[in-house]
Amino acid sequence: MTNKETKPGVSRRTILGTSAAAAGVGLAGGISLATNTTAQAQSTAVPKAARAGTQKAEVLPGELDEYYTFFSSGQTGEMRIVGLPSMRELMRVPVFNRDSATGWGLTNESLKVLTEGLLPESKEFLKNRGGTYVNGDLHHPHLSFTEGTYDGRYAFMNDKANTRVARVRLDVMKCDKIIQLPNQHSVHGLRVQKYPRTGYVFCNGEDRVPIPNDGKILDDKAQYHAIFTAVDGDTMKVAWQVMVDGNLDNVDGDYQGKYAFATCYNSEGGVTSAEMTANEQDWVTIFDIKRIEEAVKKGDFKEIGGVPVIDGRHGSPYTRYVPVSNNPHGINTAPDGIHICVAGKLSPTVTVMDVRLFEQLFDDKIKPRDVVVAEPEVGLGPLHTAFDGRGNAYTTLFLDSQICKWNIDLAKRAFKGDKVSPIIDKIDVHYQPGHNHSSMGETKEADGKWLISLNKFSKDRFLNVGPLKPENDQLIDISGDKMVLMHDGPSFAEPHDATIVHRSKINPISIWDRADPMFADAVKQAKADGIKLEEDSKVIRDGNKVRVYMTSQAPVFGLSSFQVKQGDEVTVHVTNIDDIEDLTHGFAIINYGIQMEVAPQATASVTFSADKAGVYWYYCSWFCHAMHMEMKGRMFVEPKSA
Amino acid sequence: MTNKETKPGVSRRTILGTSAAAAGVGLAGGISLATNTTAQAQSTAVPKAARAGTQKAEVLPGELDEYYTFFSSGQTGEMRIVGLPSMRELMRVPVFNRDSATGWGLTNESLKVLTEGLLPESKEFLKNRGGTYVNGDLHHPHLSFTEGTYDGRYAFMNDKANTRVARVRLDVMKCDKIIQLPNQHSVHGLRVQKYPRTGYVFCNGEDRVPIPNDGKILDDKAQYHAIFTAVDGDTMKVAWQVMVDGNLDNVDGDYQGKYAFATCYNSEGGVTSAEMTANEQDWVTIFDIKRIEEAVKKGDFKEIGGVPVIDGRHGSPYTRYVPVSNNPHGINTAPDGIHICVAGKLSPTVTVMDVRLFEQLFDDKIKPRDVVVAEPEVGLGPLHTAFDGRGNAYTTLFLDSQICKWNIDLAKRAFKGDKVSPIIDKIDVHYQPGHNHSSMGETKEADGKWLISLNKFSKDRFLNVGPLKPENDQLIDISGDKMVLMHDGPSFAEPHDATIVHRSKINPISIWDRADPMFADAVKQAKADGIKLEEDSKVIRDGNKVRVYMTSQAPVFGLSSFQVKQGDEVTVHVTNIDDIEDLTHGFAIINYGIQMEVAPQATASVTFSADKAGVYWYYCSWFCHAMHMEMKGRMFVEPKSA
Repeated sequence: MTNKETKPGVSRRTILGTSAAAAGVGLAGGISLATNTTAQAQSTAVPKAARAGTQKAEVLPGELDEYYTFFSSGQTGEMRIVGLPSMRELMRVPVFNRDSATGWGLTNESLKVLTEGLLPESKEFLKNRGGTYVNGDLHHPHLSFTEGTYDGRYAFMNDKANTRVARVRLDVMKCDKIIQLPNQHSVHGLRVQKYPRTGYVFCNGEDRVPIPNDGKILDDKAQYHAIFTAVDGDTMKVAWQVMVDGNLDNVDGDYQGKYAFATCYNSEGGVTSAEMTANEQDWVTIFDIKRIEEAVKKGDFKEIGGVPVIDGRHGSPYTRYVPVSNNPHGINTAPDGIHICVAGKLSPTVTVMDVRLFEQLFDDKIKPRDVVVAEPEVGLGPLHTAFDGRGNAYTTLFLDSQICKWNIDLAKRAFKGDKVSPIIDKIDVHYQPGHNHSSMGETKEADGKWLISLNKFSKDRFLNVGPLKPENDQLIDISGDKMVLMHDGPSFAEPHDATIVHRSKINPISIWDRADPMFADAVKQAKADGIKLEEDSKVIRDGNKVRVYMTSQAPVFGLSSFQVKQGDEVTVHVTNIDDIEDLTHGFAIINYGIQMEVAPQATASVTFSADKAGVYWYYCSWFCHAMHMEMKGRMFVEPKSA
Repeated sequence: MTNKETKPGVSRRTILGTSAAAAGVGLAGGISLATNTTAQAQSTAVPKAARAGTQKAEVLPGELDEYYTFFSSGQTGEMRIVGLPSMRELMRVPVFNRDSATGWGLTNESLKVLTEGLLPESKEFLKNRGGTYVNGDLHHPHLSFTEGTYDGRYAFMNDKANTRVARVRLDVMKCDKIIQLPNQHSVHGLRVQKYPRTGYVFCNGEDRVPIPNDGKILDDKAQYHAIFTAVDGDTMKVAWQVMVDGNLDNVDGDYQGKYAFATCYNSEGGVTSAEMTANEQDWVTIFDIKRIEEAVKKGDFKEIGGVPVIDGRHGSPYTRYVPVSNNPHGINTAPDGIHICVAGKLSPTVTVMDVRLFEQLFDDKIKPRDVVVAEPEVGLGPLHTAFDGRGNAYTTLFLDSQICKWNIDLAKRAFKGDKVSPIIDKIDVHYQPGHNHSSMGETKEADGKWLISLNKFSKDRFLNVGPLKPENDQLIDISGDKMVLMHDGPSFAEPHDATIVHRSKINPISIWDRADPMFADAVKQAKADGIKLEEDSKVIRDGNKVRVYMTSQAPVFGLSSFQVKQGDEVTVHVTNIDDIEDLTHGFAIINYGIQMEVAPQATASVTFSADKAGVYWYYCSWFCHAMHMEMKGRMFVEPKSA
């Protein structure tokens, strides 16, 4: 495989000519000149800074956005909340990363979330590494459903880097659970059960490794396996796993609650790029949830790593493998509840399956390819598909740097032989789009107003900020016949995926409930120490353990000083007794590396060893009051020798 | 001191009535009803979503912003680059924080920056804490000057939490130096020498502690000291320090290169809020740079902590103390090169000093207060002042939640007794503004086009995102007679301070120079190993140390696998040999907590102990190509027992 010619980012027209060759796979036939020509002809040339959408994208001072957008942040490891259409980042929610501002990864409350769901071998591995991973690769934030639409309870998301799944509570916008999946090696695609409710969180194991992966087997790919996991979204425990053939890529669920389905590449079981792309076809793996649940009930599984693992490889009653073109990528269920669109990636096609045919397929009444009802050619490098609820689909074309709008019914007619073109419109995006998402588009309430295209390259679209460039999240008005580009949104590595949710679905609180489980451990400890967190500011000594309790109320901490001995294990609990919206306090100790956020009516705590003797000022690090600068106190650390 | 009544965030009009009382200081006289009435009368009521600026704030797709804005991020610890007027975040530059996406705090290159400038006692303290601080409180990003304006070389910034100063290279937008200041306890205000060039970086030590702070002295405030530091911006070493009276708050320099001047609170030397606000007046401390340089030359200092410390307390020839109202805050030099504006914070006034009088003050020909040439009453809670280059000043009013535009010459006339009001205009901001900044406003090239108000509270200005709310950076058009609010910009905790720089001043590169010092250590090690980083992909074993060298070129790594032994110390060097703009690669090892960014033509490296046996896939974590998902390889970790 040569890769001298493969230089994405140069010019998308250059790539058109070279990438197919560079991929080294059987694409020459797949990419017909006709498709290419069609793409060119239908391309909507967007002149610089021209714009004539039917909707207003600018949100003026004092106005609110209509939608919440929940962005993954890829390798940054956080979840982001962005307002739409303004595309302004409203909040960062630390999840797999460490966050200096909130003390995520430093406070006891966050460390509990970060560590309690780790696999035993990871706890051991991380023992001398601060106890937690410091990185994550957060993909695919998807919200909990009830009966086919968002219910505002949770967002779920995965960490591709360290094989974890996390949950964010949408009432407080904080991560409350993270688990690491056993047996599985990395988790890529993640989606949730849409019906009757979430329910299951479906997690694709991408890479194949030996199980157990303890070093006894190394370079023997025949003994590698990939795993599909269903996590229980309520308990955040693994419900069951399925061993499959091939690397799992993306996943989605149906609107009936019967199936999950995942794109798979590397049906070859290869371990190099060349091997992974050798076959003409890979497949979509369909999981029959009822059959799997019955298998678990009747014991047709092996328990491995403490969870039931079902054999879903070829020949299994629990799965079906539908052949599609080589290395498919995105898989998206249309809001009509019927059609599932599988993007070809290395093929210029989208394969459309009809979910109503799956029962016959599992009953072996039809053949796998019989569930395919359309396969339009949409352009080069199709990756993901969004929907407008009016029967149209919008597919990102990575190589063409375009979005293709096409009609599902027209595609079905064309598949049957009618001389119709399903392509409705194309628009240039800048550049190389991956995921896209439409407003409410992954629910039965798709409203067809907005589309975002999450582009992997921005090149010269923004002021130059050095060798590392932002990505570009572009906002497109899809309410009219033609797509209209409305806004370029730079973003830090990398948005990857997003869901656009109408604001009526999300109802966060502004003041913490004192009974919130997030700080229940602190409340329990305080009770044991005879402390009323909302009133008392006291120091409790317990051997060489010192528990410091203090209130914070603008502009003073309950303690203006406290004293400990060098080497003590000190836990500081700060309770914000202000009950005013937006009146967050902080607690930082100078030169001690301590910092945390304490929002209204919350308690936060941090434990550290008082290794340095001396006077150390602590201060409020979240601006709270005109006298904020003076909101401080002193920690005295008495030297050991004293 | 009662603080039951102090609830900022409720309503700014409520605060007006309560905060002064809550502060518990002698403010009743200071806040005249007259001022309050004036503020109300002059307040420009901004109706929701109304806007009629003379300039366009929206930047359409394909257009570029006119200004770079360099934002601090407060307790988040990073520097941010934001485009203006669009207010879009273009890039995050990790500095004092850990960053999962770039591997900041994980790669050898970043660890060198984060650790080599730490004080010896901090190196010891952090030994069992991963070697680095994981938090920072980044305030005050200010760019290097040559002859009174930005020269595009560096941005400097401080860490209030762990007493550090950092430098970011503006050619590559990466932090290249961080030092921790000895003797000083926290660093709050930071500004740079404007003339003839930077030169010095002035760093205010805020808190007073014993020197040395080793625990021998604890609760004895009489033996506490505050320190002012001048760092050499070229070498990033401490040039000299000055011991002063009172807590240093904000700082600025003149346009002549002769003086630095800092606001001070806590002239009382107190250790509680009540003590720190007991006096009617605090002061501005002026530093005579030439005199201090001569003192260093002639040896009039004590060497403490390895640096020269000059005694600049009352009575010193090196400093002067100008009395101003209690607890002053911002200090800003006007672009006219003459006037220095000191915001009153607890007083409704701004004190204006004339820098041309400082020589006479140091020669004791005039008294300290004789340098004051105006002291307008501007409103409640004045914190910082920006300038338009047309003789007007814009002061943030924290308590009033307003910006007050006032004229320096009119204020001087009023101070002399003329019956003129210096107040030109007021505008509501939302809510509680801290710093503000005008386009090019801290240089002699102030252009008077834009002002940003960095507000600490946003409350209901954005969709509700839970108990933790964003701040609100508001964009104001100051090109006309009246200020016009143009845009609400939500931001994560907290923007704190910012500088607005015309894009003509900043010229980053897009492709790394292979000779760049950032990865010179890797180049040196490779040479010793006989490796050509740009060509070779090889594994070098050196006892139990294993050095893995590989290239990355979309879509393949130079090595599709490598093998090490459990317990080996492994260093992976990845060299991105693509030379295409924006084609950044990543390198992540699954379940090993390893992730880094490798931009075009850069080398990045990471060292870890291979503690877990098994097969671990590594993959490209920065989207690079249509075959990005397949860009991966395997690390085999052979078990110890094998």
